[in-house]
Amino acid sequence: MKLPVLEIFGPTIQGEGMMAGKKTMFVRTAGCDYSCAWCDSAFTWDGSAKEEIIQMSPEEVVNELERIGQSAFSHVTISGGNPGLLKNMGALISLLHSKGIEVGLETQGSRYQDWFCEVDQLTLSPKPPSSKMDTNWDTLDLIVNELVTHKRIHHTSLKVVIFNEEDLAYAKTVHQRYPQFSFYLQPGNDDVLSTDDTKIKLRLLECYEWLIDQVVQEKEWNDVTVLPQLHALVWGNKRGV
Amino acid sequence: MKLPVLEIFGPTIQGEGMMAGKKTMFVRTAGCDYSCAWCDSAFTWDGSAKEEIIQMSPEEVVNELERIGQSAFSHVTISGGNPGLLKNMGALISLLHSKGIEVGLETQGSRYQDWFCEVDQLTLSPKPPSSKMDTNWDTLDLIVNELVTHKRIHHTSLKVVIFNEEDLAYAKTVHQRYPQFSFYLQPGNDDVLSTDDTKIKLRLLECYEWLIDQVVQEKEWNDVTVLPQLHALVWGNKRGV
Ligand code: SF4
Ligand code: SF4
Repeated sequence: MKLPVLEIFGPTIQGEGMMAGKKTMFVRTAGCDYSCAWCDSAFTWDGSAKEEIIQMSPEEVVNELERIGQSAFSHVTISGGNPGLLKNMGALISLLHSKGIEVGLETQGSRYQDWFCEVDQLTLSPKPPSSKMDTNWDTLDLIVNELVTHKRIHHTSLKVVIFNEEDLAYAKTVHQRYPQFSFYLQPGNDDVLSTDDTKIKLRLLECYEWLIDQVVQEKEWNDVTVLPQLHALVWGNKRGV
Repeated sequence: MKLPVLEIFGPTIQGEGMMAGKKTMFVRTAGCDYSCAWCDSAFTWDGSAKEEIIQMSPEEVVNELERIGQSAFSHVTISGGNPGLLKNMGALISLLHSKGIEVGLETQGSRYQDWFCEVDQLTLSPKPPSSKMDTNWDTLDLIVNELVTHKRIHHTSLKVVIFNEEDLAYAKTVHQRYPQFSFYLQPGNDDVLSTDDTKIKLRLLECYEWLIDQVVQEKEWNDVTVLPQLHALVWGNKRGV
């Protein structure tokens, strides 16, 4: 019943999506079934941080969260990699809930787990063509059906990261296929290796403006929310903030 | 039944608060009962844009929204100035609702109007000490009581703009007085006259990081959301975007 944990940090703010700006702690799990061309967390699956992975029980994770965050948090974000690979995540979510702590989690939606229906804010983030990954629509349909059946619509959002017009066309397909869910667009970070923070920040804002320009005139995007990666704007490509 | 309108623009994105990033049109009304030291919309009340004010009926406002935005919007944000001064706003809100359009509105909470309970996303943004304005707590209590009585908790949020530690102490008082509402903190823009966009953007991100640092370690801020002004990050101090 152990989970492969790569880092635990916070409190900080959630930088993306439906909880953007929300104060939270992070638990990052190791392992991903994808290898997106522009992955900003490649260390979770490319072997480069292999020695940092610790197998932890849910109790150990919560102890570490409380050691670092003390009482200064009431929200935990589980990220990856793809935490949706881990069958045992349900126990950690239950333990956090028993302590009055809310849980957010993001997955690309390549695998379904029962415990998806326990997550307070679940973000499904299917990957667009620029990632070089293929979406398994049957799996995504199945996940969406389970979430709808379990009345999780208001606990779920869809988010697609956009690097170019082809990605935006893909995102529109996703939005139209699953119109029940609130939908977030996020400009991609095309320079995940740079350490020149000022350059990164201005570039991200440029991409954000481009994305806004793309969606504002189109009726099909009337209900969308467009948000930049706040943590990247503040801290550039640094890890653990 | 006319409304003093200063500008109508969009579609663009909402830059602040509970609907940050959401695609929307803007209707900006003229007139404010405050004169905040750092007001970023002083032209709405200081006489400098007096000639631009047009008295418009709700029908005329909607016609203009549809002329500019065509069918590319399903949300309208009413801002000011203080739109909470206008008794007749209810008719515009009803007309927008009858067309399936959602309405967001922000006010500092110095005056109550019945139609507050019709707004889909109402932001109460009381002003901290750096504004040099005094909060009328009796009025704010009354507004909050009305909203609670009418079951508007999930349609309302509180937002305080922060320039310094004194403002943050004020914000904590507001948060603790009205714990029912979701609470947003926003770093102040201390350079509303600059036209050097790069300077503004980097400065805003610096203030945002400072604000995050202030709140992450404090238990009293566990439920807060901290967001920058996205429109200022993208467009600097430009009007009408
Ligand atoms: S799904 Fe996420 S973690 Fe996995 S490779 Fe893609 S971006 Fe990286
Ligand atoms: S309440 Fe708002 S519009 Fe009025 S002076 Fe203050 S900041 Fe400006």
